[in-house]
Amino acid sequence: MKAKLIFVTGNRGKFLEAKKILEDFGIELEQVDLDVTEPQADNLEEVVKKCAEEAFKVIKRSFIIEDSGLFINALNGFPGVYSSYVYKTIGYEGILKLLFGIVDRSAYFMTSLAYVELGGELKIFSGRVDGVITTEARGKNNFGFDPIFKPLGSNLTFAEMSIEEKNKFSHRAKALRAFVSWLLSEKKI
Amino acid sequence: MKAKLIFVTGNRGKFLEAKKILEDFGIELEQVDLDVTEPQADNLEEVVKKCAEEAFKVIKRSFIIEDSGLFINALNGFPGVYSSYVYKTIGYEGILKLLFGIVDRSAYFMTSLAYVELGGELKIFSGRVDGVITTEARGKNNFGFDPIFKPLGSNLTFAEMSIEEKNKFSHRAKALRAFVSWLLSEKKI
Repeated sequence: MKAKLIFVTGNRGKFLEAKKILEDFGIELEQVDLDVTEPQADNLEEVVKKCAEEAFKVIKRSFIIEDSGLFINALNGFPGVYSSYVYKTIGYEGILKLLFGIVDRSAYFMTSLAYVELGGELKIFSGRVDGVITTEARGKNNFGFDPIFKPLGSNLTFAEMSIEEKNKFSHRAKALRAFVSWLLSEKKI
Repeated sequence: MKAKLIFVTGNRGKFLEAKKILEDFGIELEQVDLDVTEPQADNLEEVVKKCAEEAFKVIKRSFIIEDSGLFINALNGFPGVYSSYVYKTIGYEGILKLLFGIVDRSAYFMTSLAYVELGGELKIFSGRVDGVITTEARGKNNFGFDPIFKPLGSNLTFAEMSIEEKNKFSHRAKALRAFVSWLLSEKKI
């Protein structure tokens, strides 16, 4: 029998990435789009903990919830925890403009993933991928800032990769695999 | 006897602007710097309401608290409710870079001000000033994005003005005056 798990997210792309990873471990993922007020906080872990607490009031089964951000070193970590708002307003074109003429294009994506069990116990997993911001957008796959992020060890941007390829590198995939390792070590699956 | 009021803010510049306006009405303002978690929300009013609720748990006297943002039309309202984070990371230089080559430089500053009475009743006042983003920074006075914002009806940026001059135009001053008018109409001062 398959284990079932809820992923609280409004982002279909995130859901599909997570679904692919978890199905290899016999976990069937279900998307629940819940309107959770994200707090303004300086780090993803704090954001995701508060979101998890909000979601816990509504969801009556165990679930995962995550927050991710793109942190650009030359921009003091911008857009960071506000990546989704920044993407919606100035887009990746805005990021390219901000980095115009700047040599240091190093950046990383980071995910903080919370797993909340039926009783409310919460466990956090994180994943990070280092890379560079390209000088122009490349690719149409996936979502968000993927067309301008090239992970170290690849010549492709995340938007030039299939979900499976992106999952070899991505922050979210790393956090999910850390979560699965923990489930296995705890004999929960 | 002077009326006393607390302004919950970590921003000395905001405090000084408000102090100047309120003292004309015999209200003595006191700054309290409280670490309030700002929620991520789409509008200032929602942000300030939640901050007011947080602050109310701690402050045992009536107080005001506000949130302000710079909304740039060509950038879909960016940096908006996240102005303070955006200022800390990419600064006004970042905004100038984002607007490089863009003709429509219209923007507005907006303030949402909450007044919370001893019993917890909350009243919201707002103020808005329209203007343009200059093509270069001018002036050293005041704070935040003031060096690149020129209100309609003036040839100076907010950073080229004294506090008194800025208060003739500013969003914050307008919200404060709306607050004072209300106090007067309710015979609270």
